[in-house]
Amino acid sequence: MSVTAAKGFVAAGTASGIKADGIPDMALVATEDHQPVAAAAVFTTNLAAAAPVQVSRTHLAATGGRAAAVILNAGNANAATGEAGRATAQGACDLVAAELRCESDQVLVCSTGLIGIPLDLWPFEKTVPALASELASTSNAANDAAEAILTTDTVRKEAVVVASGITVGGMAKGAAMLSPNMATMLAVLTTDAKVEHDELQGLLAAAMDNSFHRLTVDGCTSTNDTVIILASGKTDQVTDDTSVLSDLITRACADLAEQMACDAEGATKVVKVRVVGAANHADAAKAARRIAESNLVKCSFYGEDPYWGRVVSEAASAGAAFDIDKVSVGYGDFVVAVGGIEIDHDREALAEYMTQRRLEVTVDFKLGSGEWWLLTNDLTHAYVDENMGTS
Amino acid sequence: MSVTAAKGFVAAGTASGIKADGIPDMALVATEDHQPVAAAAVFTTNLAAAAPVQVSRTHLAATGGRAAAVILNAGNANAATGEAGRATAQGACDLVAAELRCESDQVLVCSTGLIGIPLDLWPFEKTVPALASELASTSNAANDAAEAILTTDTVRKEAVVVASGITVGGMAKGAAMLSPNMATMLAVLTTDAKVEHDELQGLLAAAMDNSFHRLTVDGCTSTNDTVIILASGKTDQVTDDTSVLSDLITRACADLAEQMACDAEGATKVVKVRVVGAANHADAAKAARRIAESNLVKCSFYGEDPYWGRVVSEAASAGAAFDIDKVSVGYGDFVVAVGGIEIDHDREALAEYMTQRRLEVTVDFKLGSGEWWLLTNDLTHAYVDENMGTS
Repeated sequence: MSVTAAKGFVAAGTASGIKADGIPDMALVATEDHQPVAAAAVFTTNLAAAAPVQVSRTHLAATGGRAAAVILNAGNANAATGEAGRATAQGACDLVAAELRCESDQVLVCSTGLIGIPLDLWPFEKTVPALASELASTSNAANDAAEAILTTDTVRKEAVVVASGITVGGMAKGAAMLSPNMATMLAVLTTDAKVEHDELQGLLAAAMDNSFHRLTVDGCTSTNDTVIILASGKTDQVTDDTSVLSDLITRACADLAEQMACDAEGATKVVKVRVVGAANHADAAKAARRIAESNLVKCSFYGEDPYWGRVVSEAASAGAAFDIDKVSVGYGDFVVAVGGIEIDHDREALAEYMTQRRLEVTVDFKLGSGEWWLLTNDLTHAYVDENMGTS
Repeated sequence: MSVTAAKGFVAAGTASGIKADGIPDMALVATEDHQPVAAAAVFTTNLAAAAPVQVSRTHLAATGGRAAAVILNAGNANAATGEAGRATAQGACDLVAAELRCESDQVLVCSTGLIGIPLDLWPFEKTVPALASELASTSNAANDAAEAILTTDTVRKEAVVVASGITVGGMAKGAAMLSPNMATMLAVLTTDAKVEHDELQGLLAAAMDNSFHRLTVDGCTSTNDTVIILASGKTDQVTDDTSVLSDLITRACADLAEQMACDAEGATKVVKVRVVGAANHADAAKAARRIAESNLVKCSFYGEDPYWGRVVSEAASAGAAFDIDKVSVGYGDFVVAVGGIEIDHDREALAEYMTQRRLEVTVDFKLGSGEWWLLTNDLTHAYVDENMGTS
């Protein structure tokens, strides 16, 4: 169901011709009555934000945070495409608005794919009317939309969570192991909760910190990253406690982020990097990111090598308070170093543990109560293959 | 000649048994008369600084920046080895001091190799007397020393520069494409210039900014990185202009850094990343580093793919002022994008250019006069192979 699980939403997905091989590459998500509802979004911080990001930002600002639809395409990021790219992104919104009889600035737009390649309006002109006519609240329609935004993903990414009469559903693509055809993380969530823009924006931002922002791959920030949530207000809501909605949005986002990590192109491992005992949370977060983004550490995961010295070296160069004579390191339940030096441990059992697809490495700074965790992947031959060229 | 080119220095290198395969792994550089001279050093900023770094720092502080010798070993970093590791590093200095009849704190020590593996004193006990007896000012002796500090390097790295009666020579190992056996950059330089510690320290620090600090590989900061310079004062110096010595030290360091980039394990390309027209130099440096350390960009170099969109995306997420509608990008002499969008260019000739081993990519922000450059390498299958395991 995903984006059509919450009451009041419809979706569709199909092939527009942007992808040369004729596979689905365009999706539309809309309110059932085509009326605008509360909307919130988090966009990339990349200063080369793609045309669709620029247009969506402008539209959300113009409407004060309301939207009736989101049009998405895969196969071309419409990034670094100048004025012509902005015209295409705006044109796509205009086409959707004409079909749905809403205002153009009530339509948001997302693109994913190669950067720097001109994107014409014609695939939208040809496809938006068909998408609009196919809009439905069925599972199939939601699946079609989720399928049409994929690039090198191997599976659709969808999530639905329900509590206290409120539903949050979502679809996503990409993120883990960025590759030329998948340079972006996109997610669209819908909920039937009764909530206004300002509050929804706060809840989404908070959810990001415990979901998509916990996922790091190669430290690159895409030109197109976008997470959007629409709230129809059509719930049978039994609680006014916003912590319920907050929890639902966080869980839906975390579920999608986890699916991204597991579908990482070129990766053979999903690794949870945990830093505990840091002087404070900010230090823990810095150290976790440094470890999780280290090519040396990521290669050692691929090689199933519990080379804790590398983990310590990264922890110690993260800009966080650190004392080599206090730190301990563990892989899963195997503690391999205490007080900065290696201790006896069952090497055979640890070697067996390292062969698993899901790993966890924990670094305890023994300095305070700061904690953080991140999900990362291994750096593999296949990652290099994925990213060697655009063809 | 390298470290013995300047008047007043001797060197030796041999096998100590730290490396299991019996290849040279220990070197000694000393003043010819075994008397202390002005010394300066730059050490890793990693907070898990290895035992030899801790000991060398203490010794330089105790002597006020004077040293008579440097003992170096490869094959074991003596890092994350606790109190026992510090005792070994200190013990190595004690052994050298006993042989050379100098003070122990006039001896500096460097190690490179695996982290977290205990390093016993016995290889030093066995080898330091032999090294001391073999100390010579010949080319061969310098070559032996330069050979004995290598890990996965394929060639010795030595440099000599001369001007106005002053000589600066040096040897180095490692850095580019860090691998488990080469987790560190070490360099020892010698000069016969007449200069005191404080000035020498300033000149070395300045030289770093235009040499080793221009070389980035995977953004990792080793636990053992060390650059040391000794100045004997035995020159036939014809100038008191310190800019001559400054220039010589910078040239020697830049030469060694260049050799490191060219010998990068697992790399097939050496790429100069230039950022020009940034709002200021700091912005240019941030952007150059972001581009040079991007796995996506580095994979595209390996694939010989002039995917300028990735370069722009990294430039725009570096934390520097950036305007996508102004930026231009070029590979070598081929300008591929102007004003943020692709322009017509000779794709066939550019494809031919990308096959070269030495590449240059230039990003012009068109915002100001800030400039910076860095040397980097491509990210390759062989890099992954090198770093998958420690065995």
